[in-house]
Amino acid sequence: MAAPSRPAVPPAASDEPALLRPEIAAMAGYVPGEQPQDEGWVKLNTNENPYPPSPAVADAVVAQLAGRAPAKYPDPLAGRFRRRAAEVLGVDPEWILCGNGSDDLLTILVRTFVGAGEAMRVPTPSYVLYRTLAAIQGAACEELPFAPDWSLPEGFAAPRTAAGLPVRLAVLPNPNSPSGTIVPRRDLESIADRFPGALVIDEAYGDFADADCLGLVRSHRRVIVTRSMSKSYALAGVRFGFAVARPEVVRELEKVKDSYNCDALSIAAATAAIADRDWLRGNRATILATRARLSVALERLGFAVEPSQANFVWCTHPRRPHRPLYEALKARRILVRWMQYPGWGDGLRITVGTDAEIDTFLNALGEILAST
Amino acid sequence: MAAPSRPAVPPAASDEPALLRPEIAAMAGYVPGEQPQDEGWVKLNTNENPYPPSPAVADAVVAQLAGRAPAKYPDPLAGRFRRRAAEVLGVDPEWILCGNGSDDLLTILVRTFVGAGEAMRVPTPSYVLYRTLAAIQGAACEELPFAPDWSLPEGFAAPRTAAGLPVRLAVLPNPNSPSGTIVPRRDLESIADRFPGALVIDEAYGDFADADCLGLVRSHRRVIVTRSMSKSYALAGVRFGFAVARPEVVRELEKVKDSYNCDALSIAAATAAIADRDWLRGNRATILATRARLSVALERLGFAVEPSQANFVWCTHPRRPHRPLYEALKARRILVRWMQYPGWGDGLRITVGTDAEIDTFLNALGEILAST
Repeated sequence: MAAPSRPAVPPAASDEPALLRPEIAAMAGYVPGEQPQDEGWVKLNTNENPYPPSPAVADAVVAQLAGRAPAKYPDPLAGRFRRRAAEVLGVDPEWILCGNGSDDLLTILVRTFVGAGEAMRVPTPSYVLYRTLAAIQGAACEELPFAPDWSLPEGFAAPRTAAGLPVRLAVLPNPNSPSGTIVPRRDLESIADRFPGALVIDEAYGDFADADCLGLVRSHRRVIVTRSMSKSYALAGVRFGFAVARPEVVRELEKVKDSYNCDALSIAAATAAIADRDWLRGNRATILATRARLSVALERLGFAVEPSQANFVWCTHPRRPHRPLYEALKARRILVRWMQYPGWGDGLRITVGTDAEIDTFLNALGEILAST
Repeated sequence: MAAPSRPAVPPAASDEPALLRPEIAAMAGYVPGEQPQDEGWVKLNTNENPYPPSPAVADAVVAQLAGRAPAKYPDPLAGRFRRRAAEVLGVDPEWILCGNGSDDLLTILVRTFVGAGEAMRVPTPSYVLYRTLAAIQGAACEELPFAPDWSLPEGFAAPRTAAGLPVRLAVLPNPNSPSGTIVPRRDLESIADRFPGALVIDEAYGDFADADCLGLVRSHRRVIVTRSMSKSYALAGVRFGFAVARPEVVRELEKVKDSYNCDALSIAAATAAIADRDWLRGNRATILATRARLSVALERLGFAVEPSQANFVWCTHPRRPHRPLYEALKARRILVRWMQYPGWGDGLRITVGTDAEIDTFLNALGEILAST
């Protein structure tokens, strides 16, 4: 209980045995997008929703704060959320597993399906975290490049890597980041028909797209869809995501998750959010309208812009190097994401902010392009 | 977006290749204590604090709910909490790693230090989750029995298991569950001097004990202390814990944790809670007084009671079987924890509730003992 005095740090003896697993010592660690803790930034770098969540969220959290609720362990399976989400999605509650953000679900999935020394497969350029999760697990991560039109390469469904390792898990973000593109349903179905491992379709941005893959979970027992509440429900700060999978798969994933991986406040928040369908429809319509305006304006500024199905836009400039643009914007306290993929190239990923934020961004970008 | 129709579940073909890692398919999964979601239970089974948390907690959470804060990603390292906890503990902030409950930290520690096919070591009877974490990792878990006086066995510091595997991590809960006992500081220091792997001292119940091991983190670079906010700060529903370790160890653990493992609401709640030292002192004094009364009353009812340094009491009855007592209490909507350890025996673990809850429990137990 008593506060002890400041520690004196003894030096580490250089002949001590290695403490860490060599995989951990060797890896660099995933670096998430910058999260400045001070105010005054136009933050278009981590695909947060620029609007506050449904007002029902705050009411639900405040109700949870009364009395002893914060002192009691939460429901391990978040039954309230499962029941409400099941109604929305048209599945039974036991098809749903809740997670502390969809990153938690991706971690659970890798640990459930991929052993040390085995392999998983992802497309590239895509979400860099997948590779990190493989490294932590001591597994290989085969990265197959997207075709120039962002379709999947032949071979994404192959049972083994080029080096001959069995591929236990493939992850396909759909819509993809950074491109914002989707793979057509018939191509996904063809992969699901042929790939012999677990196929995870990461629909973190699915609510902004024209179609989703829940139907594939029903028709293919090895398909798992993951969803995030961070983007489309404006709950990035609350950490809540869920997976949709067949019940016999969900029961296995439950063994691997932490017992109480979702807290009582986030369960209340997420349940209120997913129930407010009017809020989702209205927010989505606003984001999509701003996205269309942003895409046109970037093209007018000379960028090549991918048609986006997400809440961000991927753009490249045929002549101007991207990193100095990112840095000049940052100097004006506007954060976008400069992304570079070794052997592939780089570009800028711009989150769809409010109309005012996008105006600020476009004006600044126009000035930077004109002045340098 | 549209709610599809109810799924028809196609049968799984029996000749399909195994999807899961064999370790996951074979394991039973950790079963946490019962968490009834309906009202009206006297809940003395999962060591929750029977009182609401500091009033500062609700204020801090409500402040976070304003505006866009829930829509933005949280600080990945929970800097606000680290700075405040560092002041309380008398260490620098970079000695602290925050987790989504101390279960999250235990998961991170196992994944950082123990490779598949390697070994970790725990005492037994103890927290059963440790074994589950080893199984998920594909690692062996050597369980060394406590001595009858709950001191550690000779050999807890040995570099290898009896089967010859290197022991990469040892976990020692202190106070231990279910016993509520602590290992004397000089014994822990002797183990820390000799054990060549990472030594985790799980102080989930440390705030209820007479002493802690933060000093060992300072003097021994392989020692890591974990703490929970669930018990002593009455925040089980909020999921927040932290580890104290040397900064070079914390930096490695950061690679393995999920990027945003603590949400913005729980960071606010935990920061407010750890800052309210008066609340902690008052709550602790109340719990310790009730614990003393509970221990004496159980002895009067004929139980052997371990002297507890935690917020629960472990007791065994020399003549009455324990499971029927647990069941008779449950029939009266009083939950205690009946714990059975193969090859060792069983007993009842009773959480220190409010005085009124303990009166209800003792009256019921007295009646059950008298009537059967």
